[in-house]
Amino acid sequence: MKAQPSSFWTHYFPVIAWLRTYSRADWRGDSLAGVITAIMLIPQGIAYAMLAGLPPQMGLYASMLPAIVYAIWGSSRTMSVGPVSIAAIMIMSALSAPEIQAFNAPVESAILLAFEVGIILWVMAALRLGGLVNFISHPVLTGFTSGAALLIILNQLPYLFGLPKFDCGLQIGCYTNYLSQWNNITTILGLGAIVGLWLFSQPLMTLLQRRGMPLQWALGISKCGPLLVIALTMLLVGLGQLAGTHAVSVVGPLEGVLPQLSTDFLNTHAWRALLPYAAIIALIAYVESVAIAKVTAYMRNQKINPNQELVALGAANIATAVSGGMVVAGGLSRTMVNFTAGARTQMATVIAVIAVIVLVLFFGHWFAYIPKSVLAAIILVAILPLIKLRHVFHTWVYHKADGWAELVTLLSVLCLGIEEGLAIGIILTIASYLRQISRPHIAEVGCVPGTEHYRNIDRHEVETCPNILLLRIDENITFANANYIEDFIQTAHQRRQQTVQDLVLIFTSVSHIDSTALEMLSRLQHHLKATGVQLHFAEIKGPVMDKLRGTALLDGKEAGSVFFRVSDVAEALN
Amino acid sequence: MKAQPSSFWTHYFPVIAWLRTYSRADWRGDSLAGVITAIMLIPQGIAYAMLAGLPPQMGLYASMLPAIVYAIWGSSRTMSVGPVSIAAIMIMSALSAPEIQAFNAPVESAILLAFEVGIILWVMAALRLGGLVNFISHPVLTGFTSGAALLIILNQLPYLFGLPKFDCGLQIGCYTNYLSQWNNITTILGLGAIVGLWLFSQPLMTLLQRRGMPLQWALGISKCGPLLVIALTMLLVGLGQLAGTHAVSVVGPLEGVLPQLSTDFLNTHAWRALLPYAAIIALIAYVESVAIAKVTAYMRNQKINPNQELVALGAANIATAVSGGMVVAGGLSRTMVNFTAGARTQMATVIAVIAVIVLVLFFGHWFAYIPKSVLAAIILVAILPLIKLRHVFHTWVYHKADGWAELVTLLSVLCLGIEEGLAIGIILTIASYLRQISRPHIAEVGCVPGTEHYRNIDRHEVETCPNILLLRIDENITFANANYIEDFIQTAHQRRQQTVQDLVLIFTSVSHIDSTALEMLSRLQHHLKATGVQLHFAEIKGPVMDKLRGTALLDGKEAGSVFFRVSDVAEALN
Repeated sequence: MKAQPSSFWTHYFPVIAWLRTYSRADWRGDSLAGVITAIMLIPQGIAYAMLAGLPPQMGLYASMLPAIVYAIWGSSRTMSVGPVSIAAIMIMSALSAPEIQAFNAPVESAILLAFEVGIILWVMAALRLGGLVNFISHPVLTGFTSGAALLIILNQLPYLFGLPKFDCGLQIGCYTNYLSQWNNITTILGLGAIVGLWLFSQPLMTLLQRRGMPLQWALGISKCGPLLVIALTMLLVGLGQLAGTHAVSVVGPLEGVLPQLSTDFLNTHAWRALLPYAAIIALIAYVESVAIAKVTAYMRNQKINPNQELVALGAANIATAVSGGMVVAGGLSRTMVNFTAGARTQMATVIAVIAVIVLVLFFGHWFAYIPKSVLAAIILVAILPLIKLRHVFHTWVYHKADGWAELVTLLSVLCLGIEEGLAIGIILTIASYLRQISRPHIAEVGCVPGTEHYRNIDRHEVETCPNILLLRIDENITFANANYIEDFIQTAHQRRQQTVQDLVLIFTSVSHIDSTALEMLSRLQHHLKATGVQLHFAEIKGPVMDKLRGTALLDGKEAGSVFFRVSDVAEALN
Repeated sequence: MKAQPSSFWTHYFPVIAWLRTYSRADWRGDSLAGVITAIMLIPQGIAYAMLAGLPPQMGLYASMLPAIVYAIWGSSRTMSVGPVSIAAIMIMSALSAPEIQAFNAPVESAILLAFEVGIILWVMAALRLGGLVNFISHPVLTGFTSGAALLIILNQLPYLFGLPKFDCGLQIGCYTNYLSQWNNITTILGLGAIVGLWLFSQPLMTLLQRRGMPLQWALGISKCGPLLVIALTMLLVGLGQLAGTHAVSVVGPLEGVLPQLSTDFLNTHAWRALLPYAAIIALIAYVESVAIAKVTAYMRNQKINPNQELVALGAANIATAVSGGMVVAGGLSRTMVNFTAGARTQMATVIAVIAVIVLVLFFGHWFAYIPKSVLAAIILVAILPLIKLRHVFHTWVYHKADGWAELVTLLSVLCLGIEEGLAIGIILTIASYLRQISRPHIAEVGCVPGTEHYRNIDRHEVETCPNILLLRIDENITFANANYIEDFIQTAHQRRQQTVQDLVLIFTSVSHIDSTALEMLSRLQHHLKATGVQLHFAEIKGPVMDKLRGTALLDGKEAGSVFFRVSDVAEALN
């Protein structure tokens, strides 16, 4: 399925593109993938709503309308949009901020938050601000995700053992008392669920495939794990009345299994206080979604349109708000499962939504018996692969500054908070980049004998002239390094003052010269001229030449020559 | 006087270097320049103290000990360190902040501020953080200076007409009432001073030079203008008792004409509240001083050592604090006059300080009669050349983003405040630079017939091969543009998918590849391989090669070739 020349309609409504060519083969892949995705969606929806501190139905609502909306506008054919763990913990972080708690309306605030996320994504689309996510570098994103995942685990551990909310802080004495409150049955259910989930995932998958079962079926059965574990524990709790007799904490009855459209959340006054949180969640939801969408699109040689993704994710979040759900984004694990199970278009999503609705309608009243410890187990197992501590080390080996940025982001998320951690990571990345470009590599070059090529005199056997100093500046010349470059050239010139008559700056690597740099170069030209040295330039690139033409640097009284090639220099100046 | 091979002592105590070779010719230049500088220092010291809202003696104290301290440690031979206008208005801004006013100790706060500025400069020296000033680009500095100068003028106008503090805000009705309070005699003195100062500056100078007087003498007489104007109006006010009978606002008696060493200011509790202001003043004091020092050093082929300047300016500010003065920095106009008057070493500064002390000792009691309107006139005339509104336009013509940064900085300083304006300017510069590098120029190149040179196919007549796509990336590949470059390459490849078998990225302009970019390139390599295209690299620079060696990108299973020169590509791949 190749990217086709896009008309207006297929560009803005990608659904038309795939519906037009929809085939029987597409249907076979989509239907199976849709059912498997639905089986994942129900436990994840309830669990992530609990993680965000919201009623379970908000996670289920987020799996319905928004997914359909994304199917219409999204440019990814296989991404599964719905509740996701990282957004869930960010919602929790926002809702527990004092300025939001002051409104004492967590559900309405969460819905309004989703609405604001949608509007912000649309604003980003309108202003073509998708490039903002570039400032979240890969190490920062990885560090952020690992840190958030660790936070989620710390947050879920009490549920696993039926413990009350942890508030010992650093008082060691309090720990024994706190831990002694654990609930036997809850812990058994939780740990049992972890073992069951683990068995169902890799071991069962490997076994089934070894027995010759096709990948898609093996995947389907394996991904039933969470739903089966939920069903089993639900039955145990329900039939054994464990919630009453053994104080096993359960989800409790759903208020309504199907969403009802409403815009009542607009009456909440928290909108201003929620805005900064919405902005950060929008950024992260977008960057994570596009990353996932790209991975699957790549494998089928399809293309993701980043701006269309802003539109589609914005629409999905507005849809989740009007249908009373939580913030949605593209889910990493669900998308990979959807893809592997054979999804070929967003029809798989439509089928998944129908399957979710059917399951919820028929079994929704049972959900009240789901033990919270089992949900915690599902979250824990789903979240573990997101923690990439070794990645920090790998990054560090290749690029020290990036490794530091990743580690500091991870630790800041854990210790200072989710939003703070991300902000610190972004600032660190930009600062370290500016630091790097402020000390550019500058090489004195000479001619490789017998060729027209010029190379660093410290790395290659080259020929040089005593009266010509050739310096290649390996960086854009801007405010960040104008001083450094000026000092470097002056020092290089003073060292060779006795013989040098011409100084040639080679601009093969220079794509920008800002006005700070232009003033520096003019000053340098003037100063060198006063000591009897002429400043020339070589290999100025087209776009740079367009800007420099007409300035005193090239056309003033003191201007030297501009050489098209370095090899012209020796001829002209000797 | 050339930069000599610097030993430890001459490096850290530049005074030794010039004292060792001190000559009779040096003395002749220095003595005249010192006296002229002293004549400027007295009016400027009193005026800038008034501008900062401080007692007049604090400006005089700042002209004494700190100048001597700088003479010992400073690496500039001609810079005149003392009170300066931009720092003065920044002191005023700090002292009028509510959190500082709460301490109700403006004098002690101002002294503590100078101390903190000194300590911050030392910390910057110790941590080699001088590079921080790179982030104040030339346009931002110019915009900031123009904005601050305009603020100073707005601030001084009431003094010129003997008006009370302006507080009409936007109530138009209030203006008539306010303006009607002007003082006749004060206004006559102020406007008269402006005319006198103007006559003494350029017209007198031109006249004297045309009559054949040597430059230095003409300069000396011309620069007496402010002191003569002060002396004349002082006499008028003193003998005519204008302060009493006509309510002419005057400086009032000095509390002590010579400084007394004290560290009492350390008992002030404002140190924490002052810190952010001190940091910004330190940054601006340093960047302005180094800029001035460089200009004069250039003209005599001397060198400024930026780190030594941090040490010397830090010491000068600590000296001003312990001697009860205000923040000091290198003064633009005084330094230029000192230089033009023939100063050859910091001995000129020592002479200037002695002259100031003598003048203050003998005439100090007269200073009480100096009318404030005359000081305002001196400030106005001194400050006008700093307002460079046309510079904004020139910058804009060369580089739109820089022009905007300059204009926005200027307006922000005027409307939002000095510190805010500077911060906005710095953020704008960095953001616009990141924006620029996030959309790098990428050129498809071909061979210039008959040579080994490869150029942009859109700009030059070149030869290309249908099966090889050569792309030259004109920028470092980093988090800021990895997405853009990936999309660009993919699009370029999809457009030529039918014929292309090899894709070569030319790295002549690439000096950094961070880990975000490395992951992008590996992903791209994998993806291209899956569609039957091999990714190669050419002209990787030494430092980049050192980092990439051993990564999967160059040594993995899917890795292509690395070509030393682009000209090797056609041979190898055809």
